[in-house]
Amino acid sequence: MGILKGMRVVEGSAFVAIPLAGMTLAQMGADVIRFDRLEGGLDATRWPVTKDGRSLFWAGLNKGKRSIAIDMKHPRGREIITEIICAPGDDAGLFLTNLAVRGFLDYPTLSARRADLVMVSLLGDRHGRPAVDYTVNPSVGFPDATGPEGSTDPVAHVLPAWDCIAGNMAVTGLLAAERHRLRTSRGQLVEIALKDVAAAMLGNLGIIGEVAVNGVDRPKGGNALYGAYGQDFLCADGERVMVIGLTERQWHNLVKVTGTAEAMAALEAELGVSLAEEGQRWLHRARISAVLAPWFAARRVAEFADAFEAAGVTWSTFRSFARALREDPDFAPGEAALFTDLDQPGIGRYPVPGSPFGFSAAPREAPAPAPALGQHTEEILADVAGLPEGEIARLFDAGIVRGG
Amino acid sequence: MGILKGMRVVEGSAFVAIPLAGMTLAQMGADVIRFDRLEGGLDATRWPVTKDGRSLFWAGLNKGKRSIAIDMKHPRGREIITEIICAPGDDAGLFLTNLAVRGFLDYPTLSARRADLVMVSLLGDRHGRPAVDYTVNPSVGFPDATGPEGSTDPVAHVLPAWDCIAGNMAVTGLLAAERHRLRTSRGQLVEIALKDVAAAMLGNLGIIGEVAVNGVDRPKGGNALYGAYGQDFLCADGERVMVIGLTERQWHNLVKVTGTAEAMAALEAELGVSLAEEGQRWLHRARISAVLAPWFAARRVAEFADAFEAAGVTWSTFRSFARALREDPDFAPGEAALFTDLDQPGIGRYPVPGSPFGFSAAPREAPAPAPALGQHTEEILADVAGLPEGEIARLFDAGIVRGG
Repeated sequence: MGILKGMRVVEGSAFVAIPLAGMTLAQMGADVIRFDRLEGGLDATRWPVTKDGRSLFWAGLNKGKRSIAIDMKHPRGREIITEIICAPGDDAGLFLTNLAVRGFLDYPTLSARRADLVMVSLLGDRHGRPAVDYTVNPSVGFPDATGPEGSTDPVAHVLPAWDCIAGNMAVTGLLAAERHRLRTSRGQLVEIALKDVAAAMLGNLGIIGEVAVNGVDRPKGGNALYGAYGQDFLCADGERVMVIGLTERQWHNLVKVTGTAEAMAALEAELGVSLAEEGQRWLHRARISAVLAPWFAARRVAEFADAFEAAGVTWSTFRSFARALREDPDFAPGEAALFTDLDQPGIGRYPVPGSPFGFSAAPREAPAPAPALGQHTEEILADVAGLPEGEIARLFDAGIVRGG
Repeated sequence: MGILKGMRVVEGSAFVAIPLAGMTLAQMGADVIRFDRLEGGLDATRWPVTKDGRSLFWAGLNKGKRSIAIDMKHPRGREIITEIICAPGDDAGLFLTNLAVRGFLDYPTLSARRADLVMVSLLGDRHGRPAVDYTVNPSVGFPDATGPEGSTDPVAHVLPAWDCIAGNMAVTGLLAAERHRLRTSRGQLVEIALKDVAAAMLGNLGIIGEVAVNGVDRPKGGNALYGAYGQDFLCADGERVMVIGLTERQWHNLVKVTGTAEAMAALEAELGVSLAEEGQRWLHRARISAVLAPWFAARRVAEFADAFEAAGVTWSTFRSFARALREDPDFAPGEAALFTDLDQPGIGRYPVPGSPFGFSAAPREAPAPAPALGQHTEEILADVAGLPEGEIARLFDAGIVRGG
């Protein structure tokens, strides 16, 4: 049904980026096989966990994959993993990994088995040093620029943003290399380093130019939208809202709906600037916010929400994860919704997201649960590795593989 | 030279996500044509800007593209954009956009012109409401979970993470749909909503399970690594470092290199737990940090950096953007480096990143500058839209298009 139906991808991974990449492909219809050690990968018990120690994290990032559990210290186990990665098929021979691949799992070894292998390898840094989202982020400077104006305490992000970005880039790298293979019959190794992803983004967003050309090290700006206007305000009901005046139209809508056009005009006259210019809104954001703050402080969200929607204001409330899940219809399960109430074996029934992609040529599929560790060991050994029944039984008996 | 050589993509965009998507494709060798209004897109002057008002942001996110500037209020301008998007070519007919596409730019209209068009459209939310990174993020809950333990002030991220993720997803959507077209000759519309990207990630990372299954609304945890061990420490020289004990090996390395094995064993005995279990490290992180804090407080980074590297500790320093650029060799331009000192017309010479992808089947290309607005108008009208010289001259004379 999915847009990638027929593609087979093998994944040797742990944590966020590569599991996310494999899941993204699985949710587009690819057959994604994740292999793990007999005891499960490094992320088998990653928090959050249920009271029984089942990983909600693992369940979240491995939806719709098939799982094989195998002893990779055993030569026969390694041989079988190699066979699975290099198994024939025009739409197979695709391998995603963030494991430290040496020996049997490195590209020269694997490509000697299947010359047209496409292997995507995510590294910490380009030089082979370990790096994770939590170290890459402070090393490029974001925590120093995050948090209240005037504070000197660095604030790290909670979303593993670099992992999420790199995981999606791994998908891109795989699809681009597979496209190239289709035209040339040549496979290749695609390498991406988490640190490079972050360093490049610093350049892409203009931050390196700001430092190198303007000589400015961006200070903390609180929750303000950098470079134009966007600010958070406390309302009469204790709620906090974010309002945006990034484009001229957004700014106009915001001023109009709050009835502050006269006050803004007076401010423009006093300052001798036009607030229609985004840079002036940024430079004078404190004065603008002083005009808007009493407006919000005097009103409950319910008093202005409908007017904001009608006026096309770009805005949102701040809320915790639990409140978002409870209050926002976008998290509600239902037909044609992003979320489905799903039974995840060992965990229970809760709202689980499908793919955010809407492909008009393929129906939006409901999410599939994550497999139990080793749930598909037997069928993968038979169908993909092509092993006869007797040998599969012997592998189970010898403890080289395990089922789910 | 690039892995996508021969592909042509047309981009109608502004701000981060779709420009990033187009640039990612351009840096893999695709011919990416960005079209803009005569006065430039909504992001033409997006901050940061130079003292002359040139946008470092725009220069960062449009590298290696071709630019055409055209009056889209004029019927002939609209007609020409349609021709460019729908121009023939097996590897063309690919359109990326985050503009509010109605009328001449919507999928039904464009696909009537070229039936196998692949169009990727990024929306704010699925229901057509405006949403930007700055509003999506508070609406799903991250600012409430970010910042110092015990604080109640929400802290928004500075990296537009959702835009960066969605931009990379747009690339994936385009490549997946183009792959499907190659097999079926059918084009399609691919829709992605920024809000859905964030909502799905909340589920993927286990946060929705934590709320729905465990009934826990994750509190702020400062700069700690959630669910295992990772913490920031102040050193004797005033530097701050992040150290990671996510995996058992990382934890072992950290304890060993800081010589705290005995103290940790005493802590384990006192608490009656094994700190080899990641969850125990999380639950008792304050006690662990109390052991490690004096060690860091007594030492300058230079005293332990080499030992940390030799021991394979996963760690980094905190530093500002400017310090990262100044001190980190990964930002230094050079052969086979990620960065190149590049002349960006109108701005000057500064370090600019190439693509973080390393494709073994294609050489790593140096980054190309961003075009001036309209720099390629004439050649695009001739080569892509196929207009005769005389008509091109008339379009310039009539002010329907402009050059760079």
